Amino acid sequence: SVNPDLASERQTASFSVEKLTALLDGGAEQTRIRRAVVEAIESDPVFSRENQYFQTQNERYEAAVRKAVHLQKKMHEMGWTENGPEYKYIYRALSGDVAFLLHRVFMRSISVLGSDKQIAKWIPLATQHKLIGSYAQTELGHGTYLQGLETTAVFDTATQEFILNTPKISAMKWWPGDMGRSATHTVVFAQLYIHGKCYGIHPFIVQIRSLQDHSLCPGITAGDIGPKMNFEHIDNGYLLLKNVRIPRENMLSKFCEVRPDGTYVRQGSQKINYFTMTTVRISLISDEVLTPLMKACTIATRYSAVRRQSKLKPGEQEAKILDYQTQQEKVLPQLAAAYAFHFINNYLQELFNRGYSEIQRKNFDMLPELHALSSGFKAVITQHCTAGVEICLRACGGHGYSLLSGLPSLYTKILASCIYEGENTILLLQTARFLIKCFMAANAGQPVPPSVTYLTAVKHGKCPAKNKLDFLSPDIYTEAYQHVAFRLTSSTAAKLQDLIQSGVKKHDAWNQCTVQLVQAAKAHCHYIAVKNFAETVEKLETKAGIQKIMKHLCDLFALHGIFSNTGAFLHDGYTSAAQMDMVTASYLDLLAVIRKDAVPLVDAFDFTDKSLNSALGSSDGQVYQRLYEWAQKSPTNQMSPAYERYLKPLLHNTLSKL
Amino acid sequence: SVNPDLASERQTASFSVEKLTALLDGGAEQTRIRRAVVEAIESDPVFSRENQYFQTQNERYEAAVRKAVHLQKKMHEMGWTENGPEYKYIYRALSGDVAFLLHRVFMRSISVLGSDKQIAKWIPLATQHKLIGSYAQTELGHGTYLQGLETTAVFDTATQEFILNTPKISAMKWWPGDMGRSATHTVVFAQLYIHGKCYGIHPFIVQIRSLQDHSLCPGITAGDIGPKMNFEHIDNGYLLLKNVRIPRENMLSKFCEVRPDGTYVRQGSQKINYFTMTTVRISLISDEVLTPLMKACTIATRYSAVRRQSKLKPGEQEAKILDYQTQQEKVLPQLAAAYAFHFINNYLQELFNRGYSEIQRKNFDMLPELHALSSGFKAVITQHCTAGVEICLRACGGHGYSLLSGLPSLYTKILASCIYEGENTILLLQTARFLIKCFMAANAGQPVPPSVTYLTAVKHGKCPAKNKLDFLSPDIYTEAYQHVAFRLTSSTAAKLQDLIQSGVKKHDAWNQCTVQLVQAAKAHCHYIAVKNFAETVEKLETKAGIQKIMKHLCDLFALHGIFSNTGAFLHDGYTSAAQMDMVTASYLDLLAVIRKDAVPLVDAFDFTDKSLNSALGSSDGQVYQRLYEWAQKSPTNQMSPAYERYLKPLLHNTLSKL
Ligand SMILES: Cc1cc2nc3c(=O)[nH]c(=O)nc-3n(C[C@H](O)[C@H](O)[C@H](O)COP(=O)(O)OP(=O)(O)OC[C@H]3O[C@@H](n4cnc5c(N)ncnc54)[C@H](O)[C@@H]3O)c2cc1C
Ligand SMILES: Cc1cc2nc3c(=O)[nH]c(=O)nc-3n(C[C@H](O)[C@H](O)[C@H](O)COP(=O)(O)OP(=O)(O)OC[C@H]3O[C@@H](n4cnc5c(N)ncnc54)[C@H](O)[C@@H]3O)c2cc1C
Repeated sequence: SVNPDLASERQTASFSVEKLTALLDGGAEQTRIRRAVVEAIESDPVFSRENQYFQTQNERYEAAVRKAVHLQKKMHEMGWTENGPEYKYIYRALSGDVAFLLHRVFMRSISVLGSDKQIAKWIPLATQHKLIGSYAQTELGHGTYLQGLETTAVFDTATQEFILNTPKISAMKWWPGDMGRSATHTVVFAQLYIHGKCYGIHPFIVQIRSLQDHSLCPGITAGDIGPKMNFEHIDNGYLLLKNVRIPRENMLSKFCEVRPDGTYVRQGSQKINYFTMTTVRISLISDEVLTPLMKACTIATRYSAVRRQSKLKPGEQEAKILDYQTQQEKVLPQLAAAYAFHFINNYLQELFNRGYSEIQRKNFDMLPELHALSSGFKAVITQHCTAGVEICLRACGGHGYSLLSGLPSLYTKILASCIYEGENTILLLQTARFLIKCFMAANAGQPVPPSVTYLTAVKHGKCPAKNKLDFLSPDIYTEAYQHVAFRLTSSTAAKLQDLIQSGVKKHDAWNQCTVQLVQAAKAHCHYIAVKNFAETVEKLETKAGIQKIMKHLCDLFALHGIFSNTGAFLHDGYTSAAQMDMVTASYLDLLAVIRKDAVPLVDAFDFTDKSLNSALGSSDGQVYQRLYEWAQKSPTNQMSPAYERYLKPLLHNTLSKL
Repeated sequence: SVNPDLASERQTASFSVEKLTALLDGGAEQTRIRRAVVEAIESDPVFSRENQYFQTQNERYEAAVRKAVHLQKKMHEMGWTENGPEYKYIYRALSGDVAFLLHRVFMRSISVLGSDKQIAKWIPLATQHKLIGSYAQTELGHGTYLQGLETTAVFDTATQEFILNTPKISAMKWWPGDMGRSATHTVVFAQLYIHGKCYGIHPFIVQIRSLQDHSLCPGITAGDIGPKMNFEHIDNGYLLLKNVRIPRENMLSKFCEVRPDGTYVRQGSQKINYFTMTTVRISLISDEVLTPLMKACTIATRYSAVRRQSKLKPGEQEAKILDYQTQQEKVLPQLAAAYAFHFINNYLQELFNRGYSEIQRKNFDMLPELHALSSGFKAVITQHCTAGVEICLRACGGHGYSLLSGLPSLYTKILASCIYEGENTILLLQTARFLIKCFMAANAGQPVPPSVTYLTAVKHGKCPAKNKLDFLSPDIYTEAYQHVAFRLTSSTAAKLQDLIQSGVKKHDAWNQCTVQLVQAAKAHCHYIAVKNFAETVEKLETKAGIQKIMKHLCDLFALHGIFSNTGAFLHDGYTSAAQMDMVTASYLDLLAVIRKDAVPLVDAFDFTDKSLNSALGSSDGQVYQRLYEWAQKSPTNQMSPAYERYLKPLLHNTLSKL
């Protein structure tokens, strides 16, 4: 039975939850397909995540491999294909607990970087799982700076082979997924040497384990890098190469080839390849970043509606913690952000699809903008969502800290997204470089890409808002965000030029501006996210209350951003102190408004109880009962040897005799 | 051998590291004692933390019990006593990995809440470990709101017993440490009923497990609450009571007694008891909050000095990441905060000692202020340090995410300090209540406690700084902090009054101000922390470069706080935009200055490699070597059944036959 405190929240929804779910899915038909996939996966006991919080790293790994192998069977059974409409929901349905993700990256890199012949040879083998692939880029000594990788591949004309080596410990491959225990092959990135000359980083297919008995191949040392904050199910690995010889044909050679005599030939444009790498940053946002935040919001919101603690008014029943303003201030902005980023993610996906067709037609004009947007948004969204999950965790008090709440593992997992696929600071600095370039170009009267045209129009106006309701106008707040983004870019550009003119070397000057450049890049993305949310709301159908509640969330997202960062808006007087008080008032008012729809808003994310795997977040709100049931299954409730060994002698005072 | 990149950092220290260590310890003699304790513990293999990152929750628990039992022996051997000078260093030397901490809370609550007779009976039993105690306050349904606890203790005049019950599932005790598997006794907090009348929450000593064979006593259901984000070594437990009868003498009765006929008698003042509880919040800061942040700073700083990534200038060697401004911006403010909070912690300790003697002399005047300070600082310091550890973790890129870096476990552990011993939001609201009261009193011309006298003097001045160097003047920035604290308290007090005057009920009005009240409480503590740091620096000896470097850190702490929160300072024009640009300039300049001493500053924390237990943070800087060595010991490098079961059939294409 549903906890009445949760049931009552659902009776007063101001909008149709089912309609909102369909909007999030991109249509009711998509919702139907997604639910069918989830149902098929969740009803299959092999995919069960029960007891996951009790498992060791070894058990998690075994389960992930079991699921990956079983998935092949399941897909066959269900008639799902890699190009079918169901495919994209499988990973979400598995909550990511599955092995061989790097096998897919292995295949993609061959498709993108390999010659037709290489594709024809390797892709069928990989598709049929006659080998298991991995992707070995990062080394102990280098992740961010790929040009600095130290693994070497020396071409031997005599044997027509490359000889791969790990010349020092920092050159050891470190982190690649699926490589620690599973992979038989991997794409190794190494410095190519021909006749003593270095030609830079190139990709090579290397077999690392026997296809017969899985033993390590000659010259290979490999293993698992050990315990991590999360991702226990993945065997991130290390790899040491000692005079490992591979045939000339194993260098991926769509763009560069080594001829038998050692001639090095570069061919074709690498730009499309570069583009493919850029898209990875966007493709991970949905499953790896938005889903965890949405789950965390679901758990924290539902729990806040059933947790009663202290009295708001003496003499009354204890209040739901969701009724405390401070609690609303924790949970609701995260909810608004989840929606904001969902919509910006849609926008980016569309933009990238458009970019892709342009690039197919050999028009590379959009590339710099796409790169800047994907870098900036990857950083901003992962950062924001990671912080959001932590806030949700802490908003659940003591019980949030139990793994059984589901929140700790959401947090420890999403945190990694700030690091992999480009460390966030590095990415923001790339976006900033683009902004500065565009700002300079705009100043010189040159055309700039659409997302930064605002940098051309110098504005020194003031915010026109006259009362707190004016701050519920998207024009007002979008304009304010634009102003801040403009100011931060232009003032940092000015600082940079001043430094250079005063004689500071260009690279030092850049370094001395990086803290501010990061701020500018964030402000740029924040502005675009707000603008996009407002434009999206504008276009929504007004039926079923959807537009109205989305408008509230858009306002909340925008005003929370101002409220949490007032200095940026006050700095040059664009917003006055009096106006900032209006922002605060409107923002706090909104919390109380959205609070009423909080539970329906998370219900619309449509996570099953199994996928939440949370004692606090289940749809029936029976939190205490579930915590108790689940805890009893913990291995910590089996008999411990500690009693006989330590406690008994202590209590019976026989210690001295030990 | 020491990595030359780390060695060179130490050669240029501007101050004496040894002198700074002594300052932190409170004198060279203290340093000597501390090191002797650490040496004795670390050289004893029973206390080893090697392989800790590979252990399961069960193994961690067993190790913690083993260490706790062995510690008794060790103390005896070494001649350490609970009142000796060594005692306070033991916990740090063990890095907190030890059981029976709640046994100490059990003893303290009997000493504080028990009658002389009860103390005489129980304390010797506990001291000799003839029983193992715990402290059962929190229930599934209530942690923050203690009056809401639902466990009942009904007095039965006929048998002169209390009958304890868990009337519903939410009344189950949940979270108490040492209770899940170890404890034989616990102090249970329950609603006292006599002749059908409820007298509120009282503490009762209840035996839960047999002293003979450790089996659960009749009517008791108890166990472990399962996996948590950290604290795997502690058996946090649950407890269900069903008609458990305990003698009348087991209600702790220093302040309240139930007479044989059921008469309820209240005696003495509870204020000193209340004070004892308040001090716990302060006593945990050093070991549970500052130490983790200091360790995280040590790891991140040393790693940033040996990690080289990308080039600052083309053609040169790759740069140490510590040379990037963005990296300095991550790590160095955390370092400054660690020092700031170390000094404020000293200040609070002294204040509490003074408070204690006053209270001994029945002068309770200081209590409200002490309560406000301990609540506010517990929240501010735990919050700040938790965020700081996370920043340090992320500043180490991919390797920071490995458990072997030591950073993930520091983070997951310190995070709990934001929740236990008072959830932070609740604590800040208590501080805010004090501030509002004092502000009202001050306005009415009544005297207020020393820490809030600034609320009496209404100031509408402007910041007098004229150039960026002015912002290195403690008077200038301390005044700015004071101004902000004053403004936030006074404006929220005004809002509160306006709401009430406009007819909003008092409790609703309070709730509608809580987001701003939390801000006011934080600003108050931040102001006091800055002021105290500045005053501490003032008093330091100028010799050996100590005062100079501490002055830099104090400036950094203050300016980082302004830089990260510019809106608060800009709001009413106290600081102008031009002045804010000066703050930014001074702040960024300071980063480069302190960067030079960064490694010596963390060396001064004087953590041994064993206590850091970090592949990235060791004093020799051999990070890659150590990551590799440690990873090889991971259980994930043992043979996995996954190959035979899943991978082999997949690769050999025998899957369909499965
Ligand atoms: C869970 C997980 C899975 C992974 N899976 C894979 C995988 O399958 N295959 C693979 O090849 N790799 C993998 N990686 C590695 C990952 O790609 C790298 O860790 C990531 O790219 C970050 O690089 P780094 O570790 O070198 O960080 P670093 O660059 O060392 O970052 C450390 C710090 O230095 C700073 N810094 C570095 N350079 C600069 C600069 N130029 N300017 C300013 N600051 C700078 C950063 O901002 C950061 O604060 C994985 C990592 C994780 C955590
Ligand atoms: C690692 C760990 C060890 C522990 N050890 C022990 C132990 O040994 N013994 C023991 O008895 N307990 C222990 N506890 C329990 C701990 O004391 C409580 O979890 C803590 O007091 C927080 O209370 P809560 O869980 O009820 O949080 P809640 O009060 O439920 O907090 C949830 C949310 O509600 C909000 N909220 C609640 N009330 C209000 C209000 N009036 N106004 C505004 N917001 C409100 C909070 O701000 C928070 O965001 C432990 C907990 C942890 C995590």
